[in-house]
Amino acid sequence: MYNFTFNVPTRINFGKGQISHLSELTESGSKVLLVYGGGSIKRAGIYDTAMGILKDAGLEVFELSGVEPNPRIESVRRGVELCKANGIDMVLAIGGGSTIDCAKVVAGGACYNGDAWDLVIDPTKIKAALPIYSVLTLAATGSEMDTFAVISDMTKNEKWGTGSPLFQPKMSVLDPTYTFTVSQKQTAAGTADMMSHTFENYFTSVEGFLQARFCEAVLKTCIKYGPIAYNEPENYEARANLMWASSWAINGTLNGGCGVAWCVHPMEHELSAFYDITHGQGLAILTPHWMEFALRDETVDKFYEYGVNVWNLDPNGDKWAVAKEAIACTSRFFKEELHIPMTLREVGITTQDKFDIMAEKAAKGSVGSYVPLTREDIVSIFKAAF
Amino acid sequence: MYNFTFNVPTRINFGKGQISHLSELTESGSKVLLVYGGGSIKRAGIYDTAMGILKDAGLEVFELSGVEPNPRIESVRRGVELCKANGIDMVLAIGGGSTIDCAKVVAGGACYNGDAWDLVIDPTKIKAALPIYSVLTLAATGSEMDTFAVISDMTKNEKWGTGSPLFQPKMSVLDPTYTFTVSQKQTAAGTADMMSHTFENYFTSVEGFLQARFCEAVLKTCIKYGPIAYNEPENYEARANLMWASSWAINGTLNGGCGVAWCVHPMEHELSAFYDITHGQGLAILTPHWMEFALRDETVDKFYEYGVNVWNLDPNGDKWAVAKEAIACTSRFFKEELHIPMTLREVGITTQDKFDIMAEKAAKGSVGSYVPLTREDIVSIFKAAF
Repeated sequence: MYNFTFNVPTRINFGKGQISHLSELTESGSKVLLVYGGGSIKRAGIYDTAMGILKDAGLEVFELSGVEPNPRIESVRRGVELCKANGIDMVLAIGGGSTIDCAKVVAGGACYNGDAWDLVIDPTKIKAALPIYSVLTLAATGSEMDTFAVISDMTKNEKWGTGSPLFQPKMSVLDPTYTFTVSQKQTAAGTADMMSHTFENYFTSVEGFLQARFCEAVLKTCIKYGPIAYNEPENYEARANLMWASSWAINGTLNGGCGVAWCVHPMEHELSAFYDITHGQGLAILTPHWMEFALRDETVDKFYEYGVNVWNLDPNGDKWAVAKEAIACTSRFFKEELHIPMTLREVGITTQDKFDIMAEKAAKGSVGSYVPLTREDIVSIFKAAF
Repeated sequence: MYNFTFNVPTRINFGKGQISHLSELTESGSKVLLVYGGGSIKRAGIYDTAMGILKDAGLEVFELSGVEPNPRIESVRRGVELCKANGIDMVLAIGGGSTIDCAKVVAGGACYNGDAWDLVIDPTKIKAALPIYSVLTLAATGSEMDTFAVISDMTKNEKWGTGSPLFQPKMSVLDPTYTFTVSQKQTAAGTADMMSHTFENYFTSVEGFLQARFCEAVLKTCIKYGPIAYNEPENYEARANLMWASSWAINGTLNGGCGVAWCVHPMEHELSAFYDITHGQGLAILTPHWMEFALRDETVDKFYEYGVNVWNLDPNGDKWAVAKEAIACTSRFFKEELHIPMTLREVGITTQDKFDIMAEKAAKGSVGSYVPLTREDIVSIFKAAF
C-alpha cells in the first residue's frame, strides 16, 4: 500500500426530505448562485422546494440554468460572470454530475483572474473557490462527494477532467426519491459510470486488500440494484443503494493507497468530446473490450478474483476460463440487464474516421494505466467496439 | 435504508513517515497537550520524533502521560486541569484507542465548567472541545477517525461510551510501522475489537445492502491479515490493512442508514468495568455465544449470508447448517488463528458472583439491539462464556 492522504469533509444528508438542510447554506453567506440544467428539476417540484427553503433562510438567489450534459465551458463562463457581477458567496448545484461539475468550475472561476478554461486544463491554477453545495438528482458521477469536474469545449473537441480539494462540496443532499424520474437510459448509463469508476480503481498496479474488497462491495451493489432501478424506477432501496454507491465509487476511498491511473475514462472522454455521446454508455461499450485487451499472464489472477468475488464464478474453475467468463458477464450485464447499446455504431459513431485522432489524445490521458495503452492499442479497442 | 447524516472530516495521513504532518498543528494555535500512555512510545522513538517536529514548528508542548488501557476518569481530570491551567489550544494523543479516548474527553472537559465525568454519562453536555489530533500506535478501536470515547470510573465499576461530532479528530497520522511492536496479545485483541465493531453494524434490524458489503470487506480484511500480523509483526501490508480497517469499522460508514443498536459491546463493557480485562479479548469471548443466542428463525438468513460471504461457505448448503458453521468459524478463528483465550475463566473472571449485577447494567446499554437482550439472556451468555 502506498502512502496517501484521505480527506472527505463533505457533509452528506441522505434520505427522503433531506433538502431541508439547504437552510444551512447561511453558514457561507447570503448570496447563492443556483446552478441547474434543463427543466426537469422544475417539473419534479425540486426547484420550488429549494427556492422556498433558500428564501425562508433569507438567502438571495441568482440563477445559472441550461447546463448541458457533458457541461460546456461556455456555461461555466456565464456562471463566473454572474458570480463576479453580483458578489456571489456560494454556489449550489441541483442536478446530476454535469451540473455539479459545472458549478465547481464556476466556483473556482469566480475566484480566478482569467479564463475558467485555464482551471480545466491546469488544476494547479485552482487556488481558491467559493463554497460548493449540491442536491443530487442522478446517481452516476460521484461529483457530489469528490474533488473532480469534467468540462468540455466542443469548439475544440476537448473534454478534460480537473480537480482540487477546493472543489469538494461542503454539503450534499442525497434524496433517492429525486431519482425516481430518471429515465431507463440514464439509470443504466449512471450505473455503468459508477461501475467504471470502480473498475478504474480495482484494476490497479498496487493494490490495497481492503480497498479491493470495498470495490467489490460497490460493484455488487450496482449489479444487484442497477436492473431493479431500471425496471422499478420508484424502488426506494434500489435508488438509495445506487445513489450511495455512486458517491463511494469515486470519493477517494477505493483508490487511497493504491496505484491507480485511469484508462477507460480517458478513452471515453474522446468519444464524448468528438460525438457528444452519453458518457456512461460510452464507458459500458468500451469496458469489455478494454478488459479483453488487458487480460494477460500478469493480470489473469486479478480478473479471476473479479470473477469469483463479484460474479460468484466457481473458484475451482480454470483461472483463464474464470477470467474470460467474468469479462463476458460484464458485457452481458450491460447489454441484457441494463439494455445499453453495446457498439459505437448504435450510439451514432458511424465511421472510423476519427479513431486515430481520438486515440492519440486519449493516450496522453492514460499514461501509467493498469496495462500500458498506446495509441495503436486504443485504436484497436475502438475498432473492436465499433 | 433510514435517513442519515454522514460527516467524517478527519484528515488521515496514512503511511510510513507521515508523522511529519504534525507540523500542521500550528493551524490550531501554539500550545499543545501531548497525551500518551506508558513508555512504549518512548522506547519506539515516536515520542522523540514527535517532540522534534512539534518544537521545530514552534509549538509549546505540555504532557499528560500514564493513560491506562481502559482509560480512567482520573486521567481525564488531570488532563483537564493541565488544559485549564495552561491555556492549552489543542490536544494531541499518541497511542492506541485508550489514549485517544482519554484525549477526546480531556478536550471536551477543557471547555466545560464542571466535572468531566458529566460528559461521559451525558454526551448532550459536550458543547465545545479543543481541536483533537492523533498519532495511532494500535489498530483496534477506530477512535482515530470517529466521534466516540469510552471512559471508566473503576471506583464505581462504571465504563461508559460517550461521543460528539466535536470529538472527531481534526487530523490523524496512521503509520503502520508504529504497530510493528504491538504484542501478539494486543494484535489479536485489536483485530477482535474491529471485527466486533463490524458485527455490531452487520447484524442489524434495518440494513443497507452497500453497507453490509462494506462490513464484509472489513471482516475479510481482519480474517486475512489478523493472523499474518500475529505471526509476522513487521509485515507492512498486514499492519497497513488492519490499521485502515480499524478506522473503517467504526467511522460511520458501516452504520449510516442502518438500524444499529449495539449488543456485545455493552456486555463487554461490564466485564472490563468490573474486572479490567482486555476489551478485545472480552469481545472475542462473548461474540460466538451472543451469535448462538441470536441465531433464530428471523435471523438465520443473515447468519447464512455471513457464512457464505465472509467465510466462503457453500451457498448450496442447508441454511441452518451454514449459519451454525459460520458461528463455529468465528470461534475457531479467534481461538486457533489469533490464540485468544476463549473463556472468562482464562482471563481472570473465576466466579459468577457478579454476573447478575453486570447483566443488569449491560441490559440498559443494549436497548433495541438486533435481537432483544434481557438481563436473564445476558446472564445466560456470561455463563456460556464462563
